[in-house]
Amino acid sequence: MPEFKPPRPGEVSIMLSQATDAGLVFIGRIRSAYPTPADCPKNTLERREPAIIEVDPPFDAGLAGIDGFSHLIALYWLDRSRRDLIVQRPSHRPEPTGVFALRSPVRPNPIGFSVVEVISRQKGRIEIRTIDCADGTPLIDLKPYLASSDAVPGALRP
Amino acid sequence: MPEFKPPRPGEVSIMLSQATDAGLVFIGRIRSAYPTPADCPKNTLERREPAIIEVDPPFDAGLAGIDGFSHLIALYWLDRSRRDLIVQRPSHRPEPTGVFALRSPVRPNPIGFSVVEVISRQKGRIEIRTIDCADGTPLIDLKPYLASSDAVPGALRP
Repeated sequence: MPEFKPPRPGEVSIMLSQATDAGLVFIGRIRSAYPTPADCPKNTLERREPAIIEVDPPFDAGLAGIDGFSHLIALYWLDRSRRDLIVQRPSHRPEPTGVFALRSPVRPNPIGFSVVEVISRQKGRIEIRTIDCADGTPLIDLKPYLASSDAVPGALRP
Repeated sequence: MPEFKPPRPGEVSIMLSQATDAGLVFIGRIRSAYPTPADCPKNTLERREPAIIEVDPPFDAGLAGIDGFSHLIALYWLDRSRRDLIVQRPSHRPEPTGVFALRSPVRPNPIGFSVVEVISRQKGRIEIRTIDCADGTPLIDLKPYLASSDAVPGALRP
């Protein structure tokens, strides 16, 4: 576990129990152009660095029927993130903001979420347009993206 | 752990290691109109049964700045799901389908995902229009929904 900096003024850190309530299994990993979390873009809208989602055997049998979905939901474990900062002060924000109002990788359960565009697939290797996480990030789930329930183009933000 | 039925013809079950790779903490729970997973709707598009997301202290401090987002991404732990069925045969599908091409609650990491519409909030209690999971389902993360990256209305499915 790396050493973490003390919270900035206005940030709030909580003590997290060492005990956990449920366990995850890693089912593969993400290969990206970003060697470390510090290299990752905050926003991938304009990015095109290619990335690969690798699903390990025997989990790759779970990809049957996935071809034809143009987009997938990827969930991944941000294994190099601290988990204790409940209120954060990112450089692009004037005031301290709660973690659940941010897409920060620092969260009590550091699960990354991206809607990814599929380019091609060969068995357990899915080429995607891009993703925001560091190379080697563990994969924990893939789901088909369903525009009917997942796309809310008119969603508002403050 | 409940007893699970044997796989149906065409379904594939794998042996999952008892060891896990990462641990989750539960940060709250979801109160819904559905007492058990068997009562949950497959599709909530036409549903309006109200639901509540409860965020426990001290995690509720992480909600600062969340008001004004009309929609949130909720991640929750489907604690009553089996995890071993990699290929499944839901009743609405003619042929066996991989778990990653399905939104089934049965998955190697049973993480539920919903885009939820916020009605109101009082401290750690967020009233939402509806959600698809059973009452008491543990909450593991909330994220602001960002239409710019999360809404892909033209996404295709097979």
